[in-house]
Amino acid sequence: MTGRCAETLAIGSELLGPSRLDTNGSFLARRLGERGFTVRFRTAVGDDLDDLRGAFEVAIHRSDLVVATGGLGPTVDDLTREAVAGLLGLPLEEDPEVLAGIEARFRSIGLAMPPRNRRQAEVPRGAAVLPNLLGTAPGLLLRHQGRTIALLPGVPAEMRAMVDDALLPLLGTTGERFVDRVLKIAGLPESEVDRRLLDVHRDRGPVEWTILALGGQIEIHLRQKVEEGAGAPDVERLDAAIASGLGAHLFGRDDATLEGVVGDLLLRRGASLAVAESLTGGAVARRITAVPGASRYFRGGVVGYSDDAKRDLAGVPEEVLREHGAVSEPVALAMAAGIAARLGADWGLATTGYAGPEGGDAAHPPGTVFLAVAGHGVSQARGVTLPGDRSQVQERCAAAALDFLRRALLGAAT
Amino acid sequence: MTGRCAETLAIGSELLGPSRLDTNGSFLARRLGERGFTVRFRTAVGDDLDDLRGAFEVAIHRSDLVVATGGLGPTVDDLTREAVAGLLGLPLEEDPEVLAGIEARFRSIGLAMPPRNRRQAEVPRGAAVLPNLLGTAPGLLLRHQGRTIALLPGVPAEMRAMVDDALLPLLGTTGERFVDRVLKIAGLPESEVDRRLLDVHRDRGPVEWTILALGGQIEIHLRQKVEEGAGAPDVERLDAAIASGLGAHLFGRDDATLEGVVGDLLLRRGASLAVAESLTGGAVARRITAVPGASRYFRGGVVGYSDDAKRDLAGVPEEVLREHGAVSEPVALAMAAGIAARLGADWGLATTGYAGPEGGDAAHPPGTVFLAVAGHGVSQARGVTLPGDRSQVQERCAAAALDFLRRALLGAAT
Repeated sequence: MTGRCAETLAIGSELLGPSRLDTNGSFLARRLGERGFTVRFRTAVGDDLDDLRGAFEVAIHRSDLVVATGGLGPTVDDLTREAVAGLLGLPLEEDPEVLAGIEARFRSIGLAMPPRNRRQAEVPRGAAVLPNLLGTAPGLLLRHQGRTIALLPGVPAEMRAMVDDALLPLLGTTGERFVDRVLKIAGLPESEVDRRLLDVHRDRGPVEWTILALGGQIEIHLRQKVEEGAGAPDVERLDAAIASGLGAHLFGRDDATLEGVVGDLLLRRGASLAVAESLTGGAVARRITAVPGASRYFRGGVVGYSDDAKRDLAGVPEEVLREHGAVSEPVALAMAAGIAARLGADWGLATTGYAGPEGGDAAHPPGTVFLAVAGHGVSQARGVTLPGDRSQVQERCAAAALDFLRRALLGAAT
Repeated sequence: MTGRCAETLAIGSELLGPSRLDTNGSFLARRLGERGFTVRFRTAVGDDLDDLRGAFEVAIHRSDLVVATGGLGPTVDDLTREAVAGLLGLPLEEDPEVLAGIEARFRSIGLAMPPRNRRQAEVPRGAAVLPNLLGTAPGLLLRHQGRTIALLPGVPAEMRAMVDDALLPLLGTTGERFVDRVLKIAGLPESEVDRRLLDVHRDRGPVEWTILALGGQIEIHLRQKVEEGAGAPDVERLDAAIASGLGAHLFGRDDATLEGVVGDLLLRRGASLAVAESLTGGAVARRITAVPGASRYFRGGVVGYSDDAKRDLAGVPEEVLREHGAVSEPVALAMAAGIAARLGADWGLATTGYAGPEGGDAAHPPGTVFLAVAGHGVSQARGVTLPGDRSQVQERCAAAALDFLRRALLGAAT
């Protein structure tokens, strides 16, 4: 594996505490993978000089490429430069060009450089400077006994830009790269996805295959190592086989989202949407409006938490509520049709049910949910029972509702 | 620092890929901290025997306590037992009691134990077994040259129960513990919180102080190491000083949320709430309904993304929309009063504005937002400009709206 093993080092005492996660590592894993590096270790370490030196020593010993994020700021807590320079026996020298850049950056926002920021111009002798277009801390790249060590700022936007603009081009190529593909699936439990893809999985060849269940949807992550410049025929073959095995349950790839796919379908049909939610409490509208430009097709929605609200906001007839109860298929259908009519939308989407822990009865325990879609002559409802605690039921129900609408839009004439 | 340095090892190749974060480490950091252990390193490593041995070797060398999660399952990918037994030169032996437990667990759900689960009964000689009441993989505890090594399952619920029920009691006490306190602040930018607490921070004494800005609110994390059984007088002193410096901007501690605090205030007043949202697109309702039992005070809400929806759902008069435009203080006020009246709620809360990237004009760029509260004779509106991209503006606006309502409820007679 020589020449291709990477380790990421996330630096900062807050990363060791109860309340922070290292999100930079996920980005690095993806980008380094695209260049053929395998991340074998991912370490977080605090702002302590001895611990930092120790972590770098271990990382340099076991990995060809070490990418550290954080600890390059101007404060006394920022010790990454010192730790690496000390470990490798390199003096820290002020770089006049870097200093001029930091001063210019402050001038551009009408400020004089605070004296403490001068530290950020210190560079271990022989290190290459990676410019930071978004902040003051430059990145540094060192080569040591065949190893490559990159020191990057911890601010995600700065780190990401620096990786793409400066680090990856300097790393050159390993002659190989990883091709990653994520296939996104809705409307099937993981066990059923497994069952349908048994043969496809068996014939996966050299492709790594990971299946994840996340908030009401399933993801299959494929990864294949290929020659630089070559395609990934096995990934393409598996993609096609999964698509054929799952049909319309496969809703997208890579960064696709259910709300984005639904938005595209509505835009393509020149159609508009309104939603009426009960137990999801705004989660469906929240996801729809997370898409930039949603105002082109989203008319609005209501959250009817009480019977009165379902009647007054979504136009559910009193007698339907009385006869069937709020958690029922007829009420879901009346909500979907009612909100579409009220807002003059082509499509209406509704959820009603018990999120728990309160509510429900023996026949309708928490997790009992009805979904409905109305539009273009279509009027469909569906009852499902969703597992999980309150927030899981709400999230899963929102995903199920978006998927229900997606299927209806696919079935309707364009 | 001997006797109190811990390292967490998260095991599983998926933890090195682009799409997974190690959430177990956060829980462990908190619990171990309460027992006086400092987590100094946090490492993720894949399902590779050599890498696992290497990671354990490094961890045992530099840490007194190593807590590993994952790799105890029944499949060939699960190599934690083998790696540790091999590294420490201990034979793996089948434990009849553990085997009987696994068989009984399968029997209880009407199944015979699959042959591959037999592996989970293998125990490195001399290891103590930590029972798993929620799954098949037992935990293991080993002592080696003064170090303690705990092997726990990676499933969060199983791991957490095992830590609390079995691991922590066995670790005994270090004679010291960490006291953690989180203070939660809304309605002030981080720089203003810093400015107001300059003197308090200077006199923080032995307390670690971290300030974080998260989605429209600020958190101050305090941590003090104290004797086992002793209180944390400096944490209490700082808590009181922060509360006095920030007044009502301090909305809660530790696990408190704005939506939870608002819910408590409404319950205490026996009052009900309705919301009308524009740019937040359901995010306010989503947060309110995330609280179990929200149906006791939340009547419902509307998401009025178009002028028509604002008029039809929230009852905003046509002439107010025409005269002032949808993104204006009068429209926000009309939305808040209108939705409260329509749903018969004591309080109405409204948001209107431009989330971006589209919409707005020179006078109202994306991020321009108006909030309004109506109820109990109160009718208040406020314009703010929020930084960030679309989703940040939406999140920050939802937080600002909840805080605006909180302040109005605090000001109103109970």
